[in-house]
Amino acid sequence: MKLRHTVVLFASLCLGIGAAQAQFQKPDDAVKYRQSALFVMGQHFSRVGAMAAGRVPFDAAAAQENMAVVMAISQLPWAGFTPDTQDVRSRAKPNVWTERAKFDEAQQNAQKALVALNNTVKTGDLDAIRRVFNDTAASCKACHDNFRN
Amino acid sequence: MKLRHTVVLFASLCLGIGAAQAQFQKPDDAVKYRQSALFVMGQHFSRVGAMAAGRVPFDAAAAQENMAVVMAISQLPWAGFTPDTQDVRSRAKPNVWTERAKFDEAQQNAQKALVALNNTVKTGDLDAIRRVFNDTAASCKACHDNFRN
Repeated sequence: MKLRHTVVLFASLCLGIGAAQAQFQKPDDAVKYRQSALFVMGQHFSRVGAMAAGRVPFDAAAAQENMAVVMAISQLPWAGFTPDTQDVRSRAKPNVWTERAKFDEAQQNAQKALVALNNTVKTGDLDAIRRVFNDTAASCKACHDNFRN
Repeated sequence: MKLRHTVVLFASLCLGIGAAQAQFQKPDDAVKYRQSALFVMGQHFSRVGAMAAGRVPFDAAAAQENMAVVMAISQLPWAGFTPDTQDVRSRAKPNVWTERAKFDEAQQNAQKALVALNNTVKTGDLDAIRRVFNDTAASCKACHDNFRN
């Protein structure tokens, strides 16, 4: 019950976070913030990937908990791509800002893919999780390929 | 309604995350994970602090959203203090591992203080928030003073 409660709560966090965003003291903080959030998210995402790939035994509860964390944190990093970070050294390509609509679309596509993966993980169907995980990872990669050095 | 829903969901995340923890590929990842989670948490915590200190205008909704993120992420960093990270360069003092029970207690005290702050922020009473914020910050600082260089 407690686990299910936790998972449901985390997984519901695909709701937007409005007022909590932005407000960085300096551009370096915004860069570190987005990198940090993406790193933590990536760690939990890769644990689901390890199960999908059969590198670790499938554990439905752990997969759901990891996805719940992914869904919650996936709301955060984008606030760190502020215009004043364009000149801060990072792996972000200039087109994050020069093609902002495309970047925002790519980010939204990745988030849609995460929602789909999260829903699939909830079913506990490992074959389906494998398929949807690969689609989701491809969506992440598409954004990285286009907007990250 | 949407905001309230988000806040309630985030704020309820003081429930434990069991199966989603641990499983780092290498000690460096565990260190980066805990530092990243603490940095993101600190950013949101400091936004509440800025309101408490009067550096930015008090916005009850924003304060609640920031605390909701703090509460959710505050569950995560501790998994990164794995024994195999003792030799990785970081600001963690050796007594994180040699006085583990004290470290765990300090961490739990900080989390209790966060719960108290979160409850106070929900009341929207800025004077109370100021008082409780200072107590909470002191609890964070106690852990830093004892366990961080």
